[in-house]
Amino acid sequence: MSNIPETMKAMVLMRHGDMDALEYHTNWPVPEPQGAEVLIRVLACGLNNTDVNTRSGWYSKTVDAPTTGAAYDEVGGEDPSWGGAPITFPRIQGADVAGIVVAAGPDADAGMIGKRVITDNWLRDWDDPLNKDKTGYFGSECDGGFAEYTTLDYRNVAVVESPMSDAELATFSCSYSTAEGMLTRANVGPEDRVLITGASGGVGSALIQLAKRRGACVIAMASEAKHENVKTLSPNAILPRRPDNLKSALQAATGHSTVTVVADIVGGDYFPTLIDVLARGGRYTCSGAIAGPLVSLDLRTLYLRDLTFTGSTVLPPHVFPDLVGYIEAGEIRPMLAATYPLAELHAAQTAFIAKKHVGNIVVVP
Amino acid sequence: MSNIPETMKAMVLMRHGDMDALEYHTNWPVPEPQGAEVLIRVLACGLNNTDVNTRSGWYSKTVDAPTTGAAYDEVGGEDPSWGGAPITFPRIQGADVAGIVVAAGPDADAGMIGKRVITDNWLRDWDDPLNKDKTGYFGSECDGGFAEYTTLDYRNVAVVESPMSDAELATFSCSYSTAEGMLTRANVGPEDRVLITGASGGVGSALIQLAKRRGACVIAMASEAKHENVKTLSPNAILPRRPDNLKSALQAATGHSTVTVVADIVGGDYFPTLIDVLARGGRYTCSGAIAGPLVSLDLRTLYLRDLTFTGSTVLPPHVFPDLVGYIEAGEIRPMLAATYPLAELHAAQTAFIAKKHVGNIVVVP
Repeated sequence: MSNIPETMKAMVLMRHGDMDALEYHTNWPVPEPQGAEVLIRVLACGLNNTDVNTRSGWYSKTVDAPTTGAAYDEVGGEDPSWGGAPITFPRIQGADVAGIVVAAGPDADAGMIGKRVITDNWLRDWDDPLNKDKTGYFGSECDGGFAEYTTLDYRNVAVVESPMSDAELATFSCSYSTAEGMLTRANVGPEDRVLITGASGGVGSALIQLAKRRGACVIAMASEAKHENVKTLSPNAILPRRPDNLKSALQAATGHSTVTVVADIVGGDYFPTLIDVLARGGRYTCSGAIAGPLVSLDLRTLYLRDLTFTGSTVLPPHVFPDLVGYIEAGEIRPMLAATYPLAELHAAQTAFIAKKHVGNIVVVP
Repeated sequence: MSNIPETMKAMVLMRHGDMDALEYHTNWPVPEPQGAEVLIRVLACGLNNTDVNTRSGWYSKTVDAPTTGAAYDEVGGEDPSWGGAPITFPRIQGADVAGIVVAAGPDADAGMIGKRVITDNWLRDWDDPLNKDKTGYFGSECDGGFAEYTTLDYRNVAVVESPMSDAELATFSCSYSTAEGMLTRANVGPEDRVLITGASGGVGSALIQLAKRRGACVIAMASEAKHENVKTLSPNAILPRRPDNLKSALQAATGHSTVTVVADIVGGDYFPTLIDVLARGGRYTCSGAIAGPLVSLDLRTLYLRDLTFTGSTVLPPHVFPDLVGYIEAGEIRPMLAATYPLAELHAAQTAFIAKKHVGNIVVVP
């Protein structure tokens, strides 16, 4: 490992807190690959809501809104992260790495050295990979990619051959595997009409492309300022972020006042309206609640209409290699909103939280 | 049809309203079987929440609590029943008929005449039987069994050979097919731990028996006054109706603080507690909300734990013949709480609403 330095630049989360809990260090130790791990030189790393939610302690349920930065003082060291176990500090976040493998641990695949790769964020017990109780999140339960180097089990790393830039490749992993996981849970196919909330964000723009890839009719909801950008993803219809009369808007846009699937990452007080446009037998799938997680549900709608709701977080192992296949086949394309230097992660995350972008934001070391 | 009179005794629902909307008539016309219908001499008819909810207009969503009888004055003729279309009056309710086929329409199976039968409440378009948008409910979209005679499509009628009494046979159809439908939606199997709310009611006692029939570990929740009766159904554990600390109660009763399935017909303000004891990947299935349909849902629990919620109302056509098979094989047994004369349906329904019974209440003409 001759060309590998001993220290590196890294953005390190020191505690639950506001943006100042993320400290930039220029002489953080470079990790050494152990066992089945490979060492990756990070060339780009995408941002995700998980970074923000973990920083603020939102997953602990003592904080209701993910972006206010108001209540995380209540979050103690005992609070669980998404996975039910508290995360430990210091911690390097960042789950969407594009980079080059530069070294391999004794049990890793040394043939990956020199290859360009992207990372699967779902840490697994590889002796029991389908056990969802034995999972972790890259950048939460171990250090991630907001640094010059990172280590990861080689089975979470996929070689990818593509003409895309490093920053473009770093837009896919979390958002697109999250989106593909939702569509898998809802079993979306060519006969479906899929309503997508938050359609301008990382997961939302992934949902548009991946639902269209499955042949579904796609209706994207986004604030009107972003419609021009969303249009480049070719949804069948685009609606405002929260139409006053959603049924009428759907009728006008698609000829149907209902949809068969809602793919939601927004939640909040519009949730009952979303549920109410589901046709009999319709499916609601969710992997986020950026407008607020506490919603009002009328059980009559759930049961009298034979609805199915699915939550999607930990993904089956096939989703990530499926996604790499779509990238290599050119079936999906990146939505790179902006690139920032790693040292400016505070500014990048501030822009990410402001949600004025379309697609994803990436930092480069 | 020589022995069939021209008029009959019938309990007729004249409007949405309180109990006095149900009027007892002694000279109501006996229906004639048309097309594929058979004429059934009713020997017993079980009560259901649907009778109460349709009478009070609960399905219209302008009424929040099904049993208060307070708000149905707001329910106009435009209000939908469970199926989305307003029901028409006068209407004879009653969906759980046990009786004898005494005549057949020109397109019905005349071989059924003289046979003892029970009825499947899901009216279908038999040219398109899987289409859930083309369904009705026996006793809501057509006249049912609170009368001496009723007609029904012969494909909704099953001959049943059993040593049980007519009243016992009239306890099964709706409750047990509803329960079997829920367990089918939740895909319950031998590896599951199933928590059942409202376990002393018609659907609840059916859920206990049918979940045990599938080999699951069954935890029944019921008010303590009913535990002795619930115990006769042999659930693996019995808990109070709403334990203060459900996780601890489950741990003490089963050795696990979580369950893999919640089968709920209660809803109300205990809903978040039920959801919170679901293990990762757990399933919640619902076909009623007797304690109130408007509940609070934390989307974080739904998605971070990869949960699945299913509503169950319109059942696949195989559920009813499956159920008849279980009855004939002696795999399930009736829970007959009380029998009333048809003329005393007001008293029977008052007792039904009071929920002091275990199993189901039946009227006989």
